[in-house]
Formats: sequence, C-alpha cells, structure tokens
Amino acid sequence: MADATCIKNVAQKVIRAKKSGKKVVVVVSAPAGMTDDLIRRAKEVNDQPAGRELDMILATGEQVSISLLAMAVKQMGEEAISFTSAQVGIITDGNHNKAKIEAINTEKILQELAQDKVVIIAGFQGVTKELEITTLGRGGSDTSAVAMGVALNATEVEIYTDVDGIYTADPRIVKNAHKIERISFDEMLEMAGSGAKVLHLRSVELAAKNNLPIHLRSSFTDTTGTYVVGEDISMEKVFVRGVAHTTNNAKITISNVEHTSKNIAYIFNEISKANINVDVITQNYVTKERITIAYTVPEEDFDKAFALTQKISLNVGSDNVTGDKNVAKVCVIGVGMKSTPGVAARVFECLSEANVDIDLISTSDINITCVVSETDYNKAVLAIHNTFEL
Amino acid sequence: MADATCIKNVAQKVIRAKKSGKKVVVVVSAPAGMTDDLIRRAKEVNDQPAGRELDMILATGEQVSISLLAMAVKQMGEEAISFTSAQVGIITDGNHNKAKIEAINTEKILQELAQDKVVIIAGFQGVTKELEITTLGRGGSDTSAVAMGVALNATEVEIYTDVDGIYTADPRIVKNAHKIERISFDEMLEMAGSGAKVLHLRSVELAAKNNLPIHLRSSFTDTTGTYVVGEDISMEKVFVRGVAHTTNNAKITISNVEHTSKNIAYIFNEISKANINVDVITQNYVTKERITIAYTVPEEDFDKAFALTQKISLNVGSDNVTGDKNVAKVCVIGVGMKSTPGVAARVFECLSEANVDIDLISTSDINITCVVSETDYNKAVLAIHNTFEL
Repeated sequence: MADATCIKNVAQKVIRAKKSGKKVVVVVSAPAGMTDDLIRRAKEVNDQPAGRELDMILATGEQVSISLLAMAVKQMGEEAISFTSAQVGIITDGNHNKAKIEAINTEKILQELAQDKVVIIAGFQGVTKELEITTLGRGGSDTSAVAMGVALNATEVEIYTDVDGIYTADPRIVKNAHKIERISFDEMLEMAGSGAKVLHLRSVELAAKNNLPIHLRSSFTDTTGTYVVGEDISMEKVFVRGVAHTTNNAKITISNVEHTSKNIAYIFNEISKANINVDVITQNYVTKERITIAYTVPEEDFDKAFALTQKISLNVGSDNVTGDKNVAKVCVIGVGMKSTPGVAARVFECLSEANVDIDLISTSDINITCVVSETDYNKAVLAIHNTFEL
Repeated sequence: MADATCIKNVAQKVIRAKKSGKKVVVVVSAPAGMTDDLIRRAKEVNDQPAGRELDMILATGEQVSISLLAMAVKQMGEEAISFTSAQVGIITDGNHNKAKIEAINTEKILQELAQDKVVIIAGFQGVTKELEITTLGRGGSDTSAVAMGVALNATEVEIYTDVDGIYTADPRIVKNAHKIERISFDEMLEMAGSGAKVLHLRSVELAAKNNLPIHLRSSFTDTTGTYVVGEDISMEKVFVRGVAHTTNNAKITISNVEHTSKNIAYIFNEISKANINVDVITQNYVTKERITIAYTVPEEDFDKAFALTQKISLNVGSDNVTGDKNVAKVCVIGVGMKSTPGVAARVFECLSEANVDIDLISTSDINITCVVSETDYNKAVLAIHNTFEL
C-alpha cells in the first residue's frame, strides 16, 4: 500500500469480497517503502539499534496502514474497524525482529465480524504477554495472515502482492515461463527457500501444517493467481513444477578435514554460533580418512564466515580453505520427482549439454539443487526449463 | 524532534540531566510535521476520518519519536527504554481526538528507573481500559508530561519547545518585549487562553492543581526559560505580567433580545449543542427590557455560528444579527491587578490615546480583555506594553 490510490484500490477489493457475502478479515503490511525508511531513520541515530527499539519503530508502519485502510473502506460505505496486534492479542515470543506467533485471541475479531464490520488487522507485528512490541521479520505479514486464517478457521487466505503468482521460472530469464495454477505446500516451501521470494517461508509452513489454501495474487489486477494447496495425486504427474534460483550466495570449501562426526558437528556449531545461516552443505571423501566439506552462505555473510572457517580449520586438521563469492544456486522443484526416477540425471545431462559446470549438488525428494558459477545461472535455468517443457 | 540532528540534540540534554544525578523520565511528542502529514494522508482517503481511526494513525508519530530517542540515548552510552502509553498504562476516557487522562500506572516506569534507565514515554496518546488508542488533542504532549510529573511526584517538569519562554508581548509586534522569568499558573492560564499558544491549556490547569512547577524552555539552546509556578506575594508587585493577543476571532452581535435569563441560556445552549466554542460574551442593556448580546467565536466557526444565531434570534425576540470576521482580542494579564485599582482605566485610556476603538470589554480579576478591529491590534498591544513599562 504505497499511496492513497493504492489504499483505495485495496479498499475496493475488500468491499467486493464483503459484498459477495463473505466475512472479511484483512491483514495489512506497511505502506511500500515505509519499513526501509524507518530503518534508515533508526540507523541515523544508532548504528546498531536494539531489537526492541527497532520493533517499536517498525510496528508503526502497519499501524498507519490499518487506519488508512479502515478510513478508505468507511468512506466507500462499509463499516470497518482497525486493530493493532496488541489490541487483538496476537501473542508472540520475545525474539525481537524475528518473533514467532504463539497464540491469537479471536474474541474481538469475532465480535466485530458479528456486527458486520470489515476487520482490519496489523500484520508483521505482535506483542508478548508482557506487552512488549515485536515483529516477525521481513515478509512477516504473510505469516500473520495465515496464522489469522488458521485461528479463525478460514476456508482460504488470499495474499495480495506485487506479482500475480508463482512462475515456472523467473520470467526475466525465461521468456516463456508461465504462471503455475496450483502448487503444493512442499513445492512452495522449496521454491520460497530457493530464491522465489514471494511468500514468507513460515507462512507456507503454517498453511501446510493446517492445510489452509493460500491464493497468491496481484494487488493490481483481478486475475487469478497461484493456489498453494495440499498435495494431491494429479500433482505428481508433473515431474518438475518450477525452477528457482538465487545469486546472493557464496561458497566456502574446507579441504582435507579429518573425517570424524565430531569434526563436522564442531564446524557447523561454530558457524551457527556466529549467527551465520548455512544453506547447502556437501561432503565428499578425499581419502578414506579425509573429507572435503563445502557449504554456501548468504553473500553478505561471506567475509565473516570465511575468516571464521579459516580459524576453525586448524582444529579439524584441514590444510586449506577457499572461498568463492560468485556462485548461484539453481533449484529444480517438483513433487512428481519423488515417484519418477531419473529426473536428477536429466538435470545434470541438460546442464552438461549447456556447458554449465556444476559446483555442488544437493538433493531432497522434491528438490535438486545445483550450485553453479554466477555467470552460468541464466543458461542453467533456461536449459532446465526447456528440457522439462515447463 | 524533526531529524536525526534534533533527536541527538535532545538525547544530549537527556544525558546531561541524567549525569547530573537526576532520575529522568522523558515524554516525547511526534517528529515535527509528522502529525500534519498523517492528517493529510488520512484526508486523502476519507474527507471526514472517524476519530477512532484518526487516533490510530496519529499515535504512530509519538511511537516513532520514543524509539528514535531511546536509540540515540543508548548510542551515547546511557541505558534507555521507550514505552507507548498503552504499555505503561496511561488510561484516558474514550473521547477520541480530545481524550482526558484518568490514571497513569507508574509501576513499569519505577521499575526501569530503579534499574538506572532513562524512561522515554509517548506523549499525546493514551489508551482506554478497553485498549482503544486515544489522543489528547493538539499540544497534548504538554499535558502528558505534566500528568506524568504529577503521577511520579516529580519536583519539576521541563517542557522543551520551539520558543525560549513566555514574553511580555509578541516580540514580532513589540520590539522590546522581554522574557518573563516567573509567571503564576493563573496568569499562564489566561495567557494560554488568550493567544499565547505555548503550552497546552490543560497542562497548566493540571500543574496548577498539583502545584507542580513547569520550566518552559527552548529545545535549541541551554538558556533558562520561563518558570510557571504558584503565585507568591512578590508577584503582585507587578500589575501587568504580559499582553497576549489573537487574531483568529470573529464577533457576532444579536440585538434587542428580550431580557430573560431563559433567553440567554437558550442562545448559548443552542450554540454549545452545535459544538461551537464561544469565547468572550458581553451583554448590555438597550432598554430596561431589551439587551444586546455579543460574543466571539474562532474564525473558522463563524459561518456556522452566524447562520445558527440568525435562526435562534427569531425565538428570543431579536430584530437583528450582525457579524464581523475581522476582530482581534487583546488581553492584559497580571495577578497584581487584583490588588491594584485603576489598571482597567489605564488600559482604556492608553487605547483611547492610541486611537484604538474598543468593541467589547470583558474582565476577570487578573485579565482585561478588549476586542478590537483586526487592523488595530498591533497598535493596542504596543500601547499597553509601553504604558505598563513591561
């Protein structure tokens, strides 16, 4: 919700839903750009603002949105009421900037719905039992919406965003990429974890756990978007649902580690203690007693992770740590590959034909991830999209 | 608090107070211009936003301020914590946009003070027992600060603002106007009610009731401002403390009203029901049975008040209603005039010498108010300032 026009536009969608006979609860995020602007203002007075105070300022974004949307809906003739998460009782733990919702009190919401009002609730924010204001992390409004849907036994959650759905690949790379009509929760989780930054990861986990369908669609149009739903048999007929990629990765390789489970645990424990999120991990034998471990981290964590790995390498008998900031991750995702042998082989084959060197490989039952050079990911995504005729 | 520089500046003052050994509680208002900006955004989506939703959006201004100030204080090395009024428990009635504080829960504040933290609290806003967010009206942060001072048994409330004190007259009109060192609560109430829009009226009432001194001073300098304190005998030695004026007035005269107390009550009852604030009221006899009533209203209410008065004039036997939008109010204020006869006479005399026609006169024991033509108020203020050698 950027300006008055956007807000009125959202209000119209809300009113249409209401007039179709539905009881409508709207969970809103901050006006576009406001969160970044507030962070900028915080950094101007404190280079490392405390999580609590950052949440205090960030929560104002959604409070602005809910009141403006309530005003707009009322102006158009429907009754509406806005609530902050503290007013409703969206209770979270006390982890500032990345809090988790623990409970939602639906009493006030149900009362207002019973009076035929549109209920508008601040997403992204929560409150602890001690009334401390928290936020759920970037994109957290998706999770607020799904959690609200679960608490209210909703039949569906619609998430309006700036794209009109999930695509088989990034349309900027693959011209004939197309919108996916239905995608399973598991596939969506893999996509979201692999660069398709459309939905907050936790929102999909929560929807999956409660089997609550999400309709992901555009704020700007009225076309149907992508339904994220529970898996059914027909879905397995498609081997590959889509290809996701990220370029914001760096790779670190630590060579000739003495092969003991203690060593492996030690390495990743140390990295985790430094609050670095490790993504892909691979391990290969060099000799019977020596292994090479490679892993990827977000590019912004590379310097910290590299220095740390050099330090800890001394304690695991390694003789060499190398790093590469210019890697990309290409993920091939589909529940169909569970029941279809040979998908991985076809992926590797087509990449080879496209002259893409694969750096690291990591697979799950519905995801084949290849780490490649950053200069090659375009070729890789195109080749896979063509091979599987997405 | 406009930008990062202002916030750091306030943080420095806070830290200086803390380092002088005081326990410091800071009540903050919204960043300069933010309240107006939020009202503008509200009006873009709803030409008459509901009071509740307006309070919802306006309360974000102070929430931004408290977190930024807490961050700035922490950056400078002191511990600080911010609280919204809902978190502390600044309980108000439910009159949106002009709520009154009913109670303040000091428990959290005292806990944090005991831990040697600077406690930073959102002014202007409150919360009802039902957790509805309210605001106290423009300038309400002054009242929040005084109410907090009362609740915490403070010895003094410092109010930092964009002027460095109360002046004997508007320095834009009177070149040699000077800053008043000490002014009594009653004088300040008359000044505040008469155009010196420096302090929120209710904040002065509250300070007077609790005999809590206010030190009104500049945010931009470190000079001593004006102390607003309880009256003492020395104050009566000054006949006139200052001259205040407002130009935002309009006058309505209703002639030849049948003189019954029922009629007078009826007129002002009707006007009050239309939510119009009447300021000065005068009544004069025309004949033994007929009176003329004149009163002033804020200029923006003139059209409404004039139309209404024309309507009700028919029911009180009046034959004529006239109006004048171009009037100003000049108020001469001083506790000394209580014990000094002839101050009013000197006021009228000096205005006559300055060729200023007095339209209406209304006096209390410490205030002589003259309504004059808008073209004359400059002359009037200057003449009075010179006559009483302020």
